Amino acid sequence: MTDAQPGALMTAEIDQQPGMLATIAEHRADIAAVAADIARHRPRFALLAARGSSDHAAIYAKYLIEVLLGLPVGLVSPSTTTLYGARPDLRDVLVISVSQSGGSPDLLEVTQAARDAGARTVAVSNTRSSQLFSAADLAVDIRAGQENAVAATKTYTATLLTLYLLVDAIRGGDGGAVADIGERAETTLRDSADQVSHAVDRFRFADRVIAAARGYSYASALESSLKLAETSYLQTHAYSGADLLHGPVAAVDEETAVLGMTSAGRGGEAMGDVLRAVGERGADVLAVGSAASSMPAALRIDVPETAEEVAPILEILPVQRLALHLSLARGGNPDNPRGLHKVTKTR
Amino acid sequence: MTDAQPGALMTAEIDQQPGMLATIAEHRADIAAVAADIARHRPRFALLAARGSSDHAAIYAKYLIEVLLGLPVGLVSPSTTTLYGARPDLRDVLVISVSQSGGSPDLLEVTQAARDAGARTVAVSNTRSSQLFSAADLAVDIRAGQENAVAATKTYTATLLTLYLLVDAIRGGDGGAVADIGERAETTLRDSADQVSHAVDRFRFADRVIAAARGYSYASALESSLKLAETSYLQTHAYSGADLLHGPVAAVDEETAVLGMTSAGRGGEAMGDVLRAVGERGADVLAVGSAASSMPAALRIDVPETAEEVAPILEILPVQRLALHLSLARGGNPDNPRGLHKVTKTR
Repeated sequence: MTDAQPGALMTAEIDQQPGMLATIAEHRADIAAVAADIARHRPRFALLAARGSSDHAAIYAKYLIEVLLGLPVGLVSPSTTTLYGARPDLRDVLVISVSQSGGSPDLLEVTQAARDAGARTVAVSNTRSSQLFSAADLAVDIRAGQENAVAATKTYTATLLTLYLLVDAIRGGDGGAVADIGERAETTLRDSADQVSHAVDRFRFADRVIAAARGYSYASALESSLKLAETSYLQTHAYSGADLLHGPVAAVDEETAVLGMTSAGRGGEAMGDVLRAVGERGADVLAVGSAASSMPAALRIDVPETAEEVAPILEILPVQRLALHLSLARGGNPDNPRGLHKVTKTR
Repeated sequence: MTDAQPGALMTAEIDQQPGMLATIAEHRADIAAVAADIARHRPRFALLAARGSSDHAAIYAKYLIEVLLGLPVGLVSPSTTTLYGARPDLRDVLVISVSQSGGSPDLLEVTQAARDAGARTVAVSNTRSSQLFSAADLAVDIRAGQENAVAATKTYTATLLTLYLLVDAIRGGDGGAVADIGERAETTLRDSADQVSHAVDRFRFADRVIAAARGYSYASALESSLKLAETSYLQTHAYSGADLLHGPVAAVDEETAVLGMTSAGRGGEAMGDVLRAVGERGADVLAVGSAASSMPAALRIDVPETAEEVAPILEILPVQRLALHLSLARGGNPDNPRGLHKVTKTR
């Protein structure tokens, strides 16, 4: 298999995830050391800075920090620093900068400015040699290894697991909920293959896809939407299930495919009403997650059940496969999407 | 003119905005009194809670608070409170809940929980009699009057102006940048009519629209996207200009219309590169704002120049008209969009 075979890179990196996740969980102690430093500083507020897929991982972390640590959280709009030169007082603030490449100049500037403003700064990245790692007080390597496909897959799940382990360690947890995450990831990919194929057949000619979720899985909806858009050029949109009912549902009709993230737990359960509402408008509903079988959906992709807060690490795996195979079925090459570069430099 | 004439309600409410904005600016003192209370409490962080169009107003306020007040800001994900029961420590935190109706049960629950957790809470709403007003420590009436059209227009701009006046007063400002906002709104609507008609003709058969902006105007991109989606059932998507180049640009082609918010200032100027990139991919670019004439765009809608931080109050006005007339041109009735209700109750 060479790089020239369409999708070879993305296929390989999707398949590396079970082993990679197991390795990250085994190195929990390194993350716990950083967590101990953070806990000592007793932050009162957290800010997350990220872009692209990393932004979705940051949104996952936002829910973890708010619910598991009880800290209010903000997502940094880099432009307030880079365009407008805002320099807020950040004493008692934990700033977590998430960048797979560590190469975004705007995140570097945000991290440096935050450190100067008194924040405790943590870089979460796949690139130990990056300027971002040097700029932050603390650094956590996501250990995903080199990522060659343009569409991020393994760096995304590696970032989720790393952020989960970090937050869990800050609250004094032992990572018990993800102890067997590698094995579960393997089961997820293996057991979902037929259901993914079925969904690929069904969505071959779709051109409007809405991804929706509530709670922790909102990150999965955002990442699913981005993955489908960047590999298959589908018109996709992600919504919190609550926001979807607030207006955008008006655009849902028989030509809309709705991908509902529905893992066991409060967020997934709250999706029942949302999927019923879009189904009544004629949408073709695909439920993905450990609660998929109890959802009003025409199609489903099952995922092994876990604690709700770690479901996003698993439920995205079959969606990555869906994006890959849909791209191939539509004659595309997900390893070489039009107009995408690995590191985008914005200020 | 009766309600039965398609678009009559939305037309009337768009046209009420110049007078309404002037009235809000005249009542600045009421807002300044609330601002004085907030300033006395010296908050160290701010949280904003909102949904739908109000969420876009909250994003505008996020930029204002970060840049003009130098406070870190977070946007509340109501589900962390309503689904997961998170109860963070909110001492020294200012929580601003924004709801036109004041009738969203989730925002009410978030506001009550925040107050119990030690936050100073402010309700910003169009409904003085709402439970939200009673639940918060402080309340600001946006004075938009009854809104009858389903698609929010005047409540949106009233909320923006109210939030601007609130933040400006907290920093000790006198509202000078919006002293003549009513007059400028009138000029904006009057002078943009021909350019709006031209854009309606051009987008009559569009079905993919991307709205993009950077900085303060990001809220305008989000609101433009929502307004077009809910009145014309267009497939729309809003991006920060920086994020757009990070991946979703792959889906931009000759069949994409891009609405770029480009008002004079750092955010608008930073859009030049973004519009050039989508233009090179064949997109049909419409630039809206006071810097539109200097942008690489096929079409433009000019808006009078103001301080950058107040441009979002004006630049959305012609886009509301665009949404209204595009809906009518496509045979729809923006006053009666499919599937939309004025107050959506989610938990």
